[in-house]
Amino acid sequence: MSKRAVVLLSGGLDSATVLAIARSEGYEVYALTVEYGQRHDDELAAARRVAKRLGAAAHQFASASLRTFGGSALTDDIDVPKGSADEPVGSGIPVTYVPARNTVLLSLALAYAESIGAHDLFIGVNAVDYSGYPDCRPAFVEAFERLANVATKIGVEVEAIRVHAPLMELSKADIIRRGLSLGVDYGLTLSCYDPVGGRPCGGCDACRIRLSAFAEVGMPDPGQR
Amino acid sequence: MSKRAVVLLSGGLDSATVLAIARSEGYEVYALTVEYGQRHDDELAAARRVAKRLGAAAHQFASASLRTFGGSALTDDIDVPKGSADEPVGSGIPVTYVPARNTVLLSLALAYAESIGAHDLFIGVNAVDYSGYPDCRPAFVEAFERLANVATKIGVEVEAIRVHAPLMELSKADIIRRGLSLGVDYGLTLSCYDPVGGRPCGGCDACRIRLSAFAEVGMPDPGQR
Repeated sequence: MSKRAVVLLSGGLDSATVLAIARSEGYEVYALTVEYGQRHDDELAAARRVAKRLGAAAHQFASASLRTFGGSALTDDIDVPKGSADEPVGSGIPVTYVPARNTVLLSLALAYAESIGAHDLFIGVNAVDYSGYPDCRPAFVEAFERLANVATKIGVEVEAIRVHAPLMELSKADIIRRGLSLGVDYGLTLSCYDPVGGRPCGGCDACRIRLSAFAEVGMPDPGQR
Repeated sequence: MSKRAVVLLSGGLDSATVLAIARSEGYEVYALTVEYGQRHDDELAAARRVAKRLGAAAHQFASASLRTFGGSALTDDIDVPKGSADEPVGSGIPVTYVPARNTVLLSLALAYAESIGAHDLFIGVNAVDYSGYPDCRPAFVEAFERLANVATKIGVEVEAIRVHAPLMELSKADIIRRGLSLGVDYGLTLSCYDPVGGRPCGGCDACRIRLSAFAEVGMPDPGQR
């Protein structure tokens, strides 16, 4: 029998790749998409497409009202920073950082895991995000795993909970290469912070990192068509 | 200038006491009440009364949709277990346990803290809950504190985040004595898992523990009038 895993799925490039990796490792995937006050429904629609096409056994939606706390361009009315494709992406903690976002996301994933008897959580944090977000570092993933094993009935009584971050050491181009080798159709995904009519803007940090990575891989971005 | 603290406030006896303790230690209190699919609004009303009367500087509501995950009598249609006041409270992990609840609550408290520049979180976990809930133990609080300091911009760049659990070592009667010494009016609070018309049922584990503790203190429970 397959082991169950909860995979955090945003609808973007990274989490779609993570879902494919979890499947390739033999897990029965329970995808979890968390609405945390995003300004657009387009990425939720992308998450639905990805879960269906990549063979998730179930797809659960949850919500956490980070919107009310403010402090981020992803949930407030602060303008998303834009630049041209050849400008460097900013350093430091970006304005698009959501306070404690990955802590909240993994907490809900842990609740879902506990309710379905899963011991494995997957999250698509990676080396690119690592540069600016404190909650995308290996130290964060390790600390959450340690917490999960004292916080829950399954962690305490049954079996060790593991938090998998299979993209951690990969560049964006390597993530794409890995996903392509597993048959991921990146045309299903949406990574943009500020899409217009369901289409990526092409100018935000997420679009620029993605376009640059597809250029490095040597193919057009199927999500920018 | 007062230091800011985020206090998780449910509207029950424990968290009201914690709010009073944080105030007595000189903190400017930002109360946070999380709706996680509770079956009744009565405890939210109790939280509002407590925040106002005990002098919180602000009172924020948040939500997390644990309801959809099931697995708990507090959010599902499972019957809340009842007993008479002289029966022992059950051992093991109670049916009223919400998967990963305190992890989710502290995650939202951390997000709120980061957005307002607070470094101190207060939660009312205590020795009575400790017996049955994995996420009420000192090891859980320590693991969350460690996580908070790698997960956030303030933890990494500014100052250590502390998670305070001032009730951890206190019996329910000692919690009540402490709160009374700080002027807490327990008539404002509601601890019942299954209130009827805004009044406590008197038979659930929470009511029985509370009634027994007030008897030990030697006064009637002002919340049961």
